[in-house]
Amino acid sequence: MTVISLNSYATGRWIAPSGKIATLASAVTGDAVAEIGSGGLDFAAMANHARTVGGPALRAMTFHQRAAMLKGVAQYLNERRDPLYELSYETGATKSDSMIDIDGGIGTMFVYASKGRRELPDDTIYIDGSFEQLSRGGNFLGQHVATSLHGVAVHINAFNFPVWGMLEKLAPTLLAGVPAIVKPASATAWLAEAAFRMMVESGLLPDGAVQFVAGSTGDLLDRLGSQDVVSFTGSAATAMMLRAKPNLLENSVRFIAEQDSLNASILGPDAAPGTPEFDAFIKEVHREMTAKAGQKCTAIRRIIVPDAHRQSVIEALSDSLGKTTIGNPRDETTRMGALASIAQRDDVREKAAIIAREAKLVFGNPDTVDAASADTERGAFVSPLLFSCDDPDGAQNVHAVEAFGPVSTVMGYRDVDHAAALANRGGGSLVASVFTHDPAVARQMVEASGAFHGRLYFANRDTGKEATGHGSPLPHMVHGGPGRAGGGEEMGGIRGVMHYMQRTAIQASPDLMTAITKGWVAGSQTAEKEQHPFRMRFGELEIGHTLWTDSREVTLEDIEHFADFTGDTFYAHMDEEAAKANPFFPGRVAHGYLILSFAAGLFVDPAPGPVLANYGLDNLRFMKPVSPGDTLKVRLTAKHKTRRNDEYGEVRWDVAVVNQDDEHVAAYELLTMNAM
Amino acid sequence: MTVISLNSYATGRWIAPSGKIATLASAVTGDAVAEIGSGGLDFAAMANHARTVGGPALRAMTFHQRAAMLKGVAQYLNERRDPLYELSYETGATKSDSMIDIDGGIGTMFVYASKGRRELPDDTIYIDGSFEQLSRGGNFLGQHVATSLHGVAVHINAFNFPVWGMLEKLAPTLLAGVPAIVKPASATAWLAEAAFRMMVESGLLPDGAVQFVAGSTGDLLDRLGSQDVVSFTGSAATAMMLRAKPNLLENSVRFIAEQDSLNASILGPDAAPGTPEFDAFIKEVHREMTAKAGQKCTAIRRIIVPDAHRQSVIEALSDSLGKTTIGNPRDETTRMGALASIAQRDDVREKAAIIAREAKLVFGNPDTVDAASADTERGAFVSPLLFSCDDPDGAQNVHAVEAFGPVSTVMGYRDVDHAAALANRGGGSLVASVFTHDPAVARQMVEASGAFHGRLYFANRDTGKEATGHGSPLPHMVHGGPGRAGGGEEMGGIRGVMHYMQRTAIQASPDLMTAITKGWVAGSQTAEKEQHPFRMRFGELEIGHTLWTDSREVTLEDIEHFADFTGDTFYAHMDEEAAKANPFFPGRVAHGYLILSFAAGLFVDPAPGPVLANYGLDNLRFMKPVSPGDTLKVRLTAKHKTRRNDEYGEVRWDVAVVNQDDEHVAAYELLTMNAM
Repeated sequence: MTVISLNSYATGRWIAPSGKIATLASAVTGDAVAEIGSGGLDFAAMANHARTVGGPALRAMTFHQRAAMLKGVAQYLNERRDPLYELSYETGATKSDSMIDIDGGIGTMFVYASKGRRELPDDTIYIDGSFEQLSRGGNFLGQHVATSLHGVAVHINAFNFPVWGMLEKLAPTLLAGVPAIVKPASATAWLAEAAFRMMVESGLLPDGAVQFVAGSTGDLLDRLGSQDVVSFTGSAATAMMLRAKPNLLENSVRFIAEQDSLNASILGPDAAPGTPEFDAFIKEVHREMTAKAGQKCTAIRRIIVPDAHRQSVIEALSDSLGKTTIGNPRDETTRMGALASIAQRDDVREKAAIIAREAKLVFGNPDTVDAASADTERGAFVSPLLFSCDDPDGAQNVHAVEAFGPVSTVMGYRDVDHAAALANRGGGSLVASVFTHDPAVARQMVEASGAFHGRLYFANRDTGKEATGHGSPLPHMVHGGPGRAGGGEEMGGIRGVMHYMQRTAIQASPDLMTAITKGWVAGSQTAEKEQHPFRMRFGELEIGHTLWTDSREVTLEDIEHFADFTGDTFYAHMDEEAAKANPFFPGRVAHGYLILSFAAGLFVDPAPGPVLANYGLDNLRFMKPVSPGDTLKVRLTAKHKTRRNDEYGEVRWDVAVVNQDDEHVAAYELLTMNAM
Repeated sequence: MTVISLNSYATGRWIAPSGKIATLASAVTGDAVAEIGSGGLDFAAMANHARTVGGPALRAMTFHQRAAMLKGVAQYLNERRDPLYELSYETGATKSDSMIDIDGGIGTMFVYASKGRRELPDDTIYIDGSFEQLSRGGNFLGQHVATSLHGVAVHINAFNFPVWGMLEKLAPTLLAGVPAIVKPASATAWLAEAAFRMMVESGLLPDGAVQFVAGSTGDLLDRLGSQDVVSFTGSAATAMMLRAKPNLLENSVRFIAEQDSLNASILGPDAAPGTPEFDAFIKEVHREMTAKAGQKCTAIRRIIVPDAHRQSVIEALSDSLGKTTIGNPRDETTRMGALASIAQRDDVREKAAIIAREAKLVFGNPDTVDAASADTERGAFVSPLLFSCDDPDGAQNVHAVEAFGPVSTVMGYRDVDHAAALANRGGGSLVASVFTHDPAVARQMVEASGAFHGRLYFANRDTGKEATGHGSPLPHMVHGGPGRAGGGEEMGGIRGVMHYMQRTAIQASPDLMTAITKGWVAGSQTAEKEQHPFRMRFGELEIGHTLWTDSREVTLEDIEHFADFTGDTFYAHMDEEAAKANPFFPGRVAHGYLILSFAAGLFVDPAPGPVLANYGLDNLRFMKPVSPGDTLKVRLTAKHKTRRNDEYGEVRWDVAVVNQDDEHVAAYELLTMNAM
């Protein structure tokens, strides 16, 4: 195998290793795989390129355009996975480990593409939350929005998931309209570089949107300012060193950290041996210990079980671990490959020795490993190690020291509160899982333990095979955790995009607010036109285009007829005395759905035209009862438009139904599909 | 006047000054007002008391109970404002300055009480965002929730608003269920202490919920860990010193900072002299320079105006400033009082001298002040100082040095992008205001400048007197800003509460999710009972109580009759050929409102009972067309309950309308008001 020369990608050019060059070894054979060194990079120029070329290009695109770009990149990568799998073997990963990394990363990008399209506007400004009416008169409104930061995001990734780690950070960053400089961990950088190179080759990303540092980041972080973001995954020690940099603190530079975590898995008090929950628990703990040879930031490090079942758990786990074939990851029978490097193996042994001061080794041997198909001298192989701790309340290390490999400790608890207290001893973690079929246990765990965990994962007989796994961060859900886990958050759907945008509280008049948000707000100008707004094609319809309808009386006969026709003979419509006794009604009143139906009768334009369908309605509130003899009329105003495809788009209409005294009796938002 | 001995309040006891005791002087007369010193405090015990006594007590209350507590405290303070005004004069504040501080602080607490009641559940767990369906089968769901941190919040407040600064931090903290230790700035601590003492005396706060440090915080910050929060308002230099503490960085302790800010106010290109916007601009800049003698973190430090109008602005402002009576704040004719201390006056003079290197003084004199009614030797009085900068692009200090007093600099711009670029030179600010009547200017400013400002305030002839003021942070809107402003956020409605809670991604089966969130989710168990759910009183109704109705056919006659009755003769209901040509319909279909109306006819229980009214409907989506001959039936399930008062509460029902093939044709949430 030729040694790969890992290039950086800076200011639009590929740059070969220079300066102090390091050789990277295969985790499996110890042979040289690649050379790396970033001595030749001008980091100031890279940051400047991102800010002045990449940022403006991305900010000129709408969220929908950026989402389409992400989808294209994900598709491009998806068609080119095979060479990535090949490179991945040398990191010690099995095929199924590689799928978590490569397919998982691409899948995350697809989810962001899809969420960007469905949950973000076809605009550059994000609307955050609801309007606030800030004055009685209604001429001064508040609305939070978010806009793209004008800086650069520096992504510092961990060695364990070179592809996923890169893509799960890039997807929300690019969707936010912010350029990124990617710095992978050196140990497995050849895989990250290959995937990164494909993205550049796709030609889908604008110049300056992404750059790549193969090697040290030099003085890059010292050059960051108030519009920049650092997103870091790695050890607490490195995070501590980086986040204390004076320029980062002085400029309040956002620092998102995802670091050490002593994740727990809890066997519920109801999940005795013989229950489906017990079996699922053993299977999951085994999987989390051995997948990726335990090199997952979400792996289960603490196995918290009822005192009565501790021995059964140890036996069942030992049994499973004993059947786990360790060896060359290219070998199809291999279930667990190697750690990423000899340095990692040595670190795991060192940390295991610290844990051993407080816990008894009940499975495995830190010094030898049975890996028939592999060179256990030059490859970074290690045996799974299961510890058992008799005094988890008194112990310190088992709650604080992470051996980043197939290492975990079993400990017993007395009751649910004790289990939660033990889980919380981790001082903040990415995830804790609970195997229980008891809803009360689930609620109690969230109350007692939620504040200490970024994610709480509940599995049982109902979730079965649909459960996505204790250790799998999903793009839909937040990944990160308080305290020891770094205090950061990533992903979580659109929440993850917001880490690269600035929230701004806007205060303005209705007209200005409509212009800023591109959505009509109450009090803003309306335009009544000769054409009925339903006659306007999607592209022609202007925000604020308004129809005021004729009026119609609601008679007692109408109410009785509607009751008879629909079967809705609720007493408030039918019985004057009973209606009067109701605290909300002056006497018999019209049905809410009668009001809606008459309103539609007033505003609908019946002939075929651009409005294809009414597909829904939001935020309907009945504000004042309608009595027999009241007359109704309707204001219909085009509020917001969202293009869906080349044929049609969604239109949201603001609808107000008023009575003869101009009082609002009902207000809602009507949704139609309109032809282009 | 006797010198006040400022007590701390620690572990439930008042503790007199001890250790190194400082004397605090009146800003107006220089006479001693109070003595302060925290040498006798055991900060470890205080943190422990908060975490073990205050936290559990607050967490045992629901959001609604905490909101009621806040309302009670606000009312208690509101009835006792007069002694606070008296103490406020000695800080240099006029009556109207004091109202911003005292009434503003109490008002903020009232808003949080109200928002807590209306926008948060009557529970301890907050539901953050929508469900995520994480598996095809629907047996594995995702939902983000937030729970109270288990630690303590340390509030470090600035000297300028001793009451507002305390209450705007306390309100969201206590609403979040987190205890606080309040440390006011010493310079004006006598006013904070008096207001704090009232809160304790109210007896409304549980033991340990609040403590007070009169003096230095000693080693308190060194004792904080991963569940604690520091919320700091003050200088960038102090923030830098505090946030670099190793234990804060190591434990990812949340640090919310609101610090220096070179806020800008921009006169729009359309706002020439003679326009209402020009006049409003002059009035606002004058107000922001002189209110609280310019000691507001939101005060306008940079006045950015079209080049052509720079001279007019200087003249108009100089005219206004010249008419401002400076003097003893107790004097009713006084419009501007004193700075908070002689030290502050010296600091303002020093910073003004730095600004003077780049800008010409066009109004005022840093060394003398005309304050007829006051002792300008011993009192901390200073003249307003207006500077004019000819080269704002080349200048550094005017964008970076904050003179925390009545000091501001006028500078000219060429076009809107230049104005935004100048505003952005502040490197992150709390607020920028724009005086314009042009919607396009407003949109452009948000695009070009949003990322640099925590708040963008637009005022013009439409907002008129309803505009709440450039310098007034509102509890509804976020207060804070990126970069130089500290990178923190406070308030912003419920967003501010979340700073004291942990977001956790929950993954679980539908049944467990229902138990955790106390809201029925699709796929979770339902209970069909003999009693119609509308017969159940609010207290009796169980989440999941479900009614499956009989079925009803929809005939072509029904559709035609409904069209005739309501007037809704849309072609999709009336014309088979035209309907078929529509991409969404197989032929003539029933009206959406006919489906809703028939559904109500199927599920309504007509006789008087606990259901008092249908007051609205949310998230209605029509999922499949209903053709003549289809039959409909309805599932109605109690989804969520919210108590409103002793008489009734709101019930949210999950409604599904299905056809003869059990396909969903419509889904929505129905809202009813139910008697207790």
